[in-house]
Amino acid sequence: MRTVAQKMLQTCNKLFSRKTPNDVLEGHPSNIETAAQMDNIQHFSSPPNPSCVEAAREHAHHVEAVIERAHHGGGWLLSGIICINILILGCALVSGSAFNSVAITAVHRQIFLIILLLLTMLWMLFYTVVTSRKEQAVVFKDSHAGPVWLQAGLVLFGLLSLLMDIFKMATYVGYLHCDSAVKVAFPVVQAVFLFVQTYFFWVHAKDCVQLHTNLTRCGLTLTLSTNLVVWMAAVTEESLHQTEIPELNVNVSHKMYRASYGEKKCKCTFSVCDTFKEAFYYLYPFNIEYSLFASAMAYVMWKNVGRLVDDHSHHHVKFRPKEVCFGPFMGILLVVAGLVTFIIYEVDILKEDEGHRNRALLIHFVMNIVIMSLMSLSTMIGCIVYRLDHREHVSEKNPTRSLDVGLLVGASMGQFIISYFSIVALVATRARGYLNALNLSWAVLTVLQLGLQNYFIIEGLNREPFHVMQEAALHTNAHAFQEHAEMSTIIDSNKSSYCLTPSEDKPNWKRRVLKEVCAFLLLANIILWIMPAFGARPQFDHPTEIKFYQFKMWAAIVNIGLPFGIFYRMHSVASLFEVYLIS
Amino acid sequence: MRTVAQKMLQTCNKLFSRKTPNDVLEGHPSNIETAAQMDNIQHFSSPPNPSCVEAAREHAHHVEAVIERAHHGGGWLLSGIICINILILGCALVSGSAFNSVAITAVHRQIFLIILLLLTMLWMLFYTVVTSRKEQAVVFKDSHAGPVWLQAGLVLFGLLSLLMDIFKMATYVGYLHCDSAVKVAFPVVQAVFLFVQTYFFWVHAKDCVQLHTNLTRCGLTLTLSTNLVVWMAAVTEESLHQTEIPELNVNVSHKMYRASYGEKKCKCTFSVCDTFKEAFYYLYPFNIEYSLFASAMAYVMWKNVGRLVDDHSHHHVKFRPKEVCFGPFMGILLVVAGLVTFIIYEVDILKEDEGHRNRALLIHFVMNIVIMSLMSLSTMIGCIVYRLDHREHVSEKNPTRSLDVGLLVGASMGQFIISYFSIVALVATRARGYLNALNLSWAVLTVLQLGLQNYFIIEGLNREPFHVMQEAALHTNAHAFQEHAEMSTIIDSNKSSYCLTPSEDKPNWKRRVLKEVCAFLLLANIILWIMPAFGARPQFDHPTEIKFYQFKMWAAIVNIGLPFGIFYRMHSVASLFEVYLIS
Repeated sequence: MRTVAQKMLQTCNKLFSRKTPNDVLEGHPSNIETAAQMDNIQHFSSPPNPSCVEAAREHAHHVEAVIERAHHGGGWLLSGIICINILILGCALVSGSAFNSVAITAVHRQIFLIILLLLTMLWMLFYTVVTSRKEQAVVFKDSHAGPVWLQAGLVLFGLLSLLMDIFKMATYVGYLHCDSAVKVAFPVVQAVFLFVQTYFFWVHAKDCVQLHTNLTRCGLTLTLSTNLVVWMAAVTEESLHQTEIPELNVNVSHKMYRASYGEKKCKCTFSVCDTFKEAFYYLYPFNIEYSLFASAMAYVMWKNVGRLVDDHSHHHVKFRPKEVCFGPFMGILLVVAGLVTFIIYEVDILKEDEGHRNRALLIHFVMNIVIMSLMSLSTMIGCIVYRLDHREHVSEKNPTRSLDVGLLVGASMGQFIISYFSIVALVATRARGYLNALNLSWAVLTVLQLGLQNYFIIEGLNREPFHVMQEAALHTNAHAFQEHAEMSTIIDSNKSSYCLTPSEDKPNWKRRVLKEVCAFLLLANIILWIMPAFGARPQFDHPTEIKFYQFKMWAAIVNIGLPFGIFYRMHSVASLFEVYLIS
Repeated sequence: MRTVAQKMLQTCNKLFSRKTPNDVLEGHPSNIETAAQMDNIQHFSSPPNPSCVEAAREHAHHVEAVIERAHHGGGWLLSGIICINILILGCALVSGSAFNSVAITAVHRQIFLIILLLLTMLWMLFYTVVTSRKEQAVVFKDSHAGPVWLQAGLVLFGLLSLLMDIFKMATYVGYLHCDSAVKVAFPVVQAVFLFVQTYFFWVHAKDCVQLHTNLTRCGLTLTLSTNLVVWMAAVTEESLHQTEIPELNVNVSHKMYRASYGEKKCKCTFSVCDTFKEAFYYLYPFNIEYSLFASAMAYVMWKNVGRLVDDHSHHHVKFRPKEVCFGPFMGILLVVAGLVTFIIYEVDILKEDEGHRNRALLIHFVMNIVIMSLMSLSTMIGCIVYRLDHREHVSEKNPTRSLDVGLLVGASMGQFIISYFSIVALVATRARGYLNALNLSWAVLTVLQLGLQNYFIIEGLNREPFHVMQEAALHTNAHAFQEHAEMSTIIDSNKSSYCLTPSEDKPNWKRRVLKEVCAFLLLANIILWIMPAFGARPQFDHPTEIKFYQFKMWAAIVNIGLPFGIFYRMHSVASLFEVYLIS
């Protein structure tokens, strides 16, 4: 089979090599990648022999292996080195400006960021105008990349970041007479960047680029590292800002941190400055989220450069919400209850009275414990059903899916870190008082829930979709059956044939349970997303951890961990939807 | 081809399923992994039909794909979740004990570590006694895993860690009347652990375990996370210890850091205590290295669980050192010069006199700049030769190699971080004085050299070995030629046939240059390994960065970054040796 394919490719090659002008060739002809792409592009750009094109399509898998190997070539390596260098330089600059505000000021950091943003925009314009215009540039689209929730999140957080930039401009215009103009220039550049980048990812997130691959790889890692440096800068700025504000009920001395910010002789020329400043710091978390979303999309695009995908593997599944009722009903109840307690919390926590604030914390903790317990319970049921359920694991390789799983697990790390640090602090101080005890239970349940949910989602994504198995059952073709049963011949026959019994309309009880669990978890994740995304920060309203770790460190932990936690919840919602569809 | 293989596998299966007793089956029969392994084990343990075994051997690649997919199953996931949980809990405990020495003391951390060490040892004993004894457990060995340099490094650093533990025991026995007994128990347990673990990796590092895979995966991630937690604890302890010692020429106030250590009323009962304490802190870097080495080996073993390797892909290449002369000669010169300046540095830096110390720093900086420049230059020559050289890239998938490359790039991150933080500090303070200027040049050249060397090594490892190409030339089999030339048909024929011209004995100039470059870089990396590994710490002897970032932060950066840097140099030596052999 392999040698046949090779011969066909070679024949096609010989046929075309006389017809195709040589100027399409870029770079060194010795580069395997270019050669393979040439093959590929020649087949698709001017197909005089349809059978050849068919053959090439059929053997896409073989060529893909070649291309994937070529990933280890020059462009891949160079783009990696560029990414590492920008990231570490950015990290050094950001920490330098945080720890030593004399020699490296925010202005230096912002100049560096402006340069990065301009370079990235230049590349994006170049890509949009030059590369993607050519017919051969994007022959394939990865239907898994840039899903709707990521695109929608990008636009939503992009708009809120834009608002932040507008507030920033308005604030720093008032300081222009005594502060650097860079502080106005940076939000202007960033606002333009937000437009360009959001447009770029909206249009091109699914591209599998085949032309100028080396340049595109470098451009995408530039985008990735720019977003990560912006993320680092935003996290640091927010942490520093939080340490500046005197906390209401925390008797930690802020003198040490305030020393460097104390000499603010520069006064704003108009009175609304402080309001604007308050407002834009409130919008920082959205900008942090935006950078994370954009980084994820840039990374997926980078992985897809030079990939050849066969689109037909994407099954369109109908979404039939009528199949389930208990899960969504409980989920909606939970969302409504969560919203109510969230509003009570937000109102009460700002009050001066200690009793009101403690009540707000009490309600918030109890609500979260209830949510976590119900989620853990339902996930456990789901996991048990998986053990009983003998569906096959998916056999085909799916880079986007493994990337998705990686992002999911990576993002869950943020919430894991916050919870474990809470647990250690609370256990070490022996969790005195009902609030501490509740906080500890919440943290322990969160760890449990995260572990279970990760297991449930990954296991669910790796199972063969039910409708595929039904198709296999409907085609009562002996060969198709054989392929499916290939690995399960030692399983006794009544078990392997069970998947053929359910009829089209009535799902069996295992599918039903899985769907209910998915629907419930999906809605629960939505409320767990809403609460921290729109301002619930019990981590700062409750003093135990702050006292234990000192404010600066705790602020760093929460400000790094929480945005990942929020990203994790959104990602979970999307993944659970997918699990729902294939269950 | 695929369907034929499937049919053969099924036939084999049916043949055996009657003969094999069912009690070999562990876990759920629905698990694909178990099923596939069963196939495999059945084929190899009692082969009644040699043609069947042959067929199975031949189609190992196909089965491997199935097994690799099954990696995403239960054990893989569970072991990952265990690893994350232990790591983050360890991280929280270690930071808790570093930042808050009241509620969480070193004793708590050490109790946690003792539990981890005991659990890991228990698993290792279980593995050695139960799993690996069974005949079917380890049918395959990965010849790439656990190379000699890693094994040798593990033993060397293990011995030095053992020395550290002995000193620790001797010290804390003197404090027994007023301090916790845990401080004596911990080094005792760790010493036993060092023996058990070093033996374990010495014997089992190459195993591709096929039995109890889920348990083995969990055990290996337990080993991995234990080593990483030990590493974290050691790094933190060393950083805290360094901030305790008043630096000679640094006028940073240590009051803040000393506050928590000031109340040491507990006195040692014998006089040599302080000498022991001095000695064991000097040995900390070796323990840090040991943990990193062990982590790397545990990770490789974890990746190899359930893998089926065909050993015949390992070519034995003769090492003929006579082929090259200029590179090794220059390299040896560099090593000797480096050793001389290193000794001068170590002697002079301890003197009270400012002039002597500055001279020592001057010599050290100049020597490092010379080494880095020569290395960058030779690596650039090597990279140019790669561009001229049209050897094919390796087509077969090699997980150990990609892991190796990952470890190489990951470890280089440590040196990158130190260099970039230096650059930022020096540029921000405008690098006044000759020492600062030299330090800056050194840092910039290091970044350049690291980037180039990473490129050179990865590119070298991904090229088809020369001897393989010669073999292809010697077998003047038309089919073999066709397979090789498969992708290069559009390259004109004189280029693609060049690789067939060199005779067996006299390498052409390109090979010669590559070998010279490899030999030179190898020796240069050895001296760059020796200097920091045996105590050269210009990062702490030169005050600019300490003043800029404050001592605590700079100590953390160097103590995390430098061990990775040392690991990187050793890894580079091994990789360059491999590149030398295949060039």
